[in-house]
Amino acid sequence: ARPKVGYYYTGKDAFSLITDQVSLIKVRDIQSVPVVVSCNTSAYDAVVTMFLEDVGTVFAVEPGGILAGVISRKDVLKIAIGGNDLHKMPVKVLMTPMPKIVVTTPDEPVLAAAKKIIDNEVDSLPVVSATSTLGNKVYEVVGRLTKTNVARLFVELGEGKGGNNYS
Amino acid sequence: ARPKVGYYYTGKDAFSLITDQVSLIKVRDIQSVPVVVSCNTSAYDAVVTMFLEDVGTVFAVEPGGILAGVISRKDVLKIAIGGNDLHKMPVKVLMTPMPKIVVTTPDEPVLAAAKKIIDNEVDSLPVVSATSTLGNKVYEVVGRLTKTNVARLFVELGEGKGGNNYS
Repeated sequence: ARPKVGYYYTGKDAFSLITDQVSLIKVRDIQSVPVVVSCNTSAYDAVVTMFLEDVGTVFAVEPGGILAGVISRKDVLKIAIGGNDLHKMPVKVLMTPMPKIVVTTPDEPVLAAAKKIIDNEVDSLPVVSATSTLGNKVYEVVGRLTKTNVARLFVELGEGKGGNNYS
Repeated sequence: ARPKVGYYYTGKDAFSLITDQVSLIKVRDIQSVPVVVSCNTSAYDAVVTMFLEDVGTVFAVEPGGILAGVISRKDVLKIAIGGNDLHKMPVKVLMTPMPKIVVTTPDEPVLAAAKKIIDNEVDSLPVVSATSTLGNKVYEVVGRLTKTNVARLFVELGEGKGGNNYS
């Protein structure tokens, strides 16, 4: 049985109120700065970038910051234990390439983006802005949304900090 | 300015209600099964276990399931790109050892445990039960709390599923 807490119902229960409030929070409100490498970078240099920037995922981009691939610690670890020479291997070989990448946008509600992270079992999503190059639709990388961002938001909302920060 | 939503305040605002409700949810309600290896396991076998079980963190234990260390993908990746032979290296060399490990318990509120994950910049916490061996306080590993667990809870609460599942 649920313990009684000191408030009255107003037609909606507490969890509906959570949904109402949380639906106002967008990806742009909590996203991180993206860490990118060129598609021709070696797997070794991509790992060095991960450690220098202390991130679990880097994005491979073409000129203009156009999203080409996603490289996670898991991707690199798989290659590394296979006994391959990471110096000689471009990230192109091991990254998850477009159009297989699940993306989000700055305007998407955090809740929908967090659901993409869970449903697709990924650690992070590139935050992108759709644009057009020579008639093709491409995505420019503008941010990074991680499980850490979502977990931090959960903690902040739970501590009652959400109301002022995200409205 | 915050858009008006269709409910009345009852003395507490929506975020206080979130805190009330979320504070009832304990680590045991959302924790995962722990994946453990022996302290004498090689770093290579620890990575193989990570891939087989599809987890980002494994715990090194002594006989009786007593927590001795935590090994993350980041720990192994650091060793792997250093050109070391993972087969010849026991996890003992690269794990975060006790007593440096941040732990949680099944009874701890998820909010407090999630705050530990964020504040200590770790991907997961061992869920432990304190016990005593030869007069020394030790921790038996009984679960694993990850950022994924927290992000999934956030999604479920936001979708209004929390009220029935966690009370």
